[in-house]
Amino acid sequence: MTHMSDSRIDRLAELAVAAGANVQAGQVVSVSGRPGYEELVRAIAAAAYRRGARFVDVAYFDPYVKLARLRHAAEDTLDWVPPWMGRRVLEIGEMAGANIAITSLQAPGIYDGIDPVRAGRDRLPSLREGIQVVMQAQVNWTVVPFPTPEWAAVVFPDLAPADALERLWEQIGHVCRLEEDDPAAAWRARAAELTATAAGLTERRIDALRFVGPGTDLTVGLFPTSRWLGGEEHRADGLLHLPNIPTEEVFTTPDPERTEGYVTSTMPLEIAGTVITGLRVRFEGGRAVEITADHGAEVLRARAAVDDGAARLGEVALVDGSGRIGPLGTVFYETLLDENAASHIALGAAYPAGVAEGPDRERANTSEIHIDFMIGGPEVTVYAVDGDGHESVLLADGAWA
Amino acid sequence: MTHMSDSRIDRLAELAVAAGANVQAGQVVSVSGRPGYEELVRAIAAAAYRRGARFVDVAYFDPYVKLARLRHAAEDTLDWVPPWMGRRVLEIGEMAGANIAITSLQAPGIYDGIDPVRAGRDRLPSLREGIQVVMQAQVNWTVVPFPTPEWAAVVFPDLAPADALERLWEQIGHVCRLEEDDPAAAWRARAAELTATAAGLTERRIDALRFVGPGTDLTVGLFPTSRWLGGEEHRADGLLHLPNIPTEEVFTTPDPERTEGYVTSTMPLEIAGTVITGLRVRFEGGRAVEITADHGAEVLRARAAVDDGAARLGEVALVDGSGRIGPLGTVFYETLLDENAASHIALGAAYPAGVAEGPDRERANTSEIHIDFMIGGPEVTVYAVDGDGHESVLLADGAWA
Repeated sequence: MTHMSDSRIDRLAELAVAAGANVQAGQVVSVSGRPGYEELVRAIAAAAYRRGARFVDVAYFDPYVKLARLRHAAEDTLDWVPPWMGRRVLEIGEMAGANIAITSLQAPGIYDGIDPVRAGRDRLPSLREGIQVVMQAQVNWTVVPFPTPEWAAVVFPDLAPADALERLWEQIGHVCRLEEDDPAAAWRARAAELTATAAGLTERRIDALRFVGPGTDLTVGLFPTSRWLGGEEHRADGLLHLPNIPTEEVFTTPDPERTEGYVTSTMPLEIAGTVITGLRVRFEGGRAVEITADHGAEVLRARAAVDDGAARLGEVALVDGSGRIGPLGTVFYETLLDENAASHIALGAAYPAGVAEGPDRERANTSEIHIDFMIGGPEVTVYAVDGDGHESVLLADGAWA
Repeated sequence: MTHMSDSRIDRLAELAVAAGANVQAGQVVSVSGRPGYEELVRAIAAAAYRRGARFVDVAYFDPYVKLARLRHAAEDTLDWVPPWMGRRVLEIGEMAGANIAITSLQAPGIYDGIDPVRAGRDRLPSLREGIQVVMQAQVNWTVVPFPTPEWAAVVFPDLAPADALERLWEQIGHVCRLEEDDPAAAWRARAAELTATAAGLTERRIDALRFVGPGTDLTVGLFPTSRWLGGEEHRADGLLHLPNIPTEEVFTTPDPERTEGYVTSTMPLEIAGTVITGLRVRFEGGRAVEITADHGAEVLRARAAVDDGAARLGEVALVDGSGRIGPLGTVFYETLLDENAASHIALGAAYPAGVAEGPDRERANTSEIHIDFMIGGPEVTVYAVDGDGHESVLLADGAWA
């Protein structure tokens, strides 16, 4: 590892702790990673302790241990989750702790040989309680990417391994604004832009969004009180944090019963080791009634079946062309990056803050899952539909109309 | 990694799961390791799931994250332990689960620059509850070693890194009997020998042991009902398991109030990253009243102060010359190996099975800690003292008298 890379790791760690999770003195900080992320995990721990963290609790989830389970364990045990895992997450929530998750495309294709029904039963490291504390805004949290050799090899297959990793670091560093003099200040500025865009959309009181493009004609109905959000979020007690680094999206909470039509994903989607390509979903009355794909549909189908909300939308997000990810033209095969390159929707739990308290919020989607997939791009036009059914172009060719 | 090494890892994993913990179908299996142990952890997980384990719960403890804490966290937070860590261990105990711990000398000297008072406050990854479930025989457990490059460099500093690792593998493979046609059967045979030796010692009704050698004249008083143990142990419900691989010791539970004299450790002792050398301990009325060392005494002193039992003995163990470790003449700087090369004593909690139920067992030592250190060797003679104070040689030059 070169000195430059080490310095990047420290800058990324500092950004995750300060601008991302906004770790406070005295906090317990959960860090979620995998074997292979040690350098960033340790730099994050040091940065958090320097800010006065009480304890940094690291969970290294090993996808190859899960692979052993998927291969050998009895099928009726595969959905069993040790109760202490969920309780740990709830307790960190009750303490108003901080969560920092590190993500990459690790071990791509690791579960390819596994019966998808078996693979679908084991959703770890995803935990119902993890969705819960985030949706209830109990924790100040962030997700940051970490470039790994395996990930680089998938994104830049034509480069030599060292060059691929360097290129991935360059692009991740660029989109995370690590090369700015003050990356945290750069993110405050970008977050303010996103917040302003969101406020403008909220004021328009859009009734529904319609996405039209190749293989896509999808209408996503919003609530009368849907609010657009973007940039920083507030913990329930008001503490600001930046949930994703990078983030380029504005999003809101749709009506879970008002999505109609069909949609073709514009990017591959990775779920716990399976890359789903050529995804097509048809909605009726808000429900995903048909999920097909060129590869891996079973995995999403299994997730969409875990509870009633899992087959309905909990988020719709718009990404314009002013961000740093889309212009790169890189497919990262990683939701954190790819979802900020293209407008997207998510099956599963809604962020309550995306709709006003009261009857609408009570109707917002709830689920144990939250899975984003990308439906936007230059060929997809987004229309705003008003209460009278009039459509006007909202986003075309990556620019606001 | 060569094919031969891979095969050794699989054999070691199989041995740990089958002959060591004796994992049963339907069990939850806790595996404790560190970053760097992934290959063995994954092989253990596969072996456990093949035997029908319900879930393999891996905890990778990162000593460099602890280092960040010791460097930067407020001192009054350093003894805080997240409650979920202990509850996880207790719950696995209540489920009558299996524990497999992997050990090595990792990151030697990592905490050398840290104020020993600070280092002493943070005992993780050791947990009070971990000692408890083991002492109450709630789990079927084992500890196995894993050769790592860092460890090999300390044990064989004159060899090139690859040669040092290969030599360490050879020696660990030999003492773990991995090269036998059926390592599990070899361990059953060796365990039976140890059990027979222990039974013979119990029959002698020894009142006290006296260790005499350079810098050592220590008398360790036993209970009237002290029982010698060795080889396999029983979980509370009777399930057999082999707690250490390798194991060459027989041991018993001493009277915590009847240790008198002084003792000089015959081997370095590693505690959570600190190597303690030249250790000398003086006992009065069962209590360690003076702990000095050439290096690292503060760390043991801090451990010995955590509760009343921590400064008293909970175990005395004898190792003869018939084992495989002593004859190698290698100092491994790792208790699992070194304690099976030399007679030793342990500060802290006693194994209840080492004394009969009733008033003696109620007086057996209890503590949050259990720390073995080596006091035997060719220059140390061990005498058996009978109830009338008569002494007779028990172990001299590594042979039973």
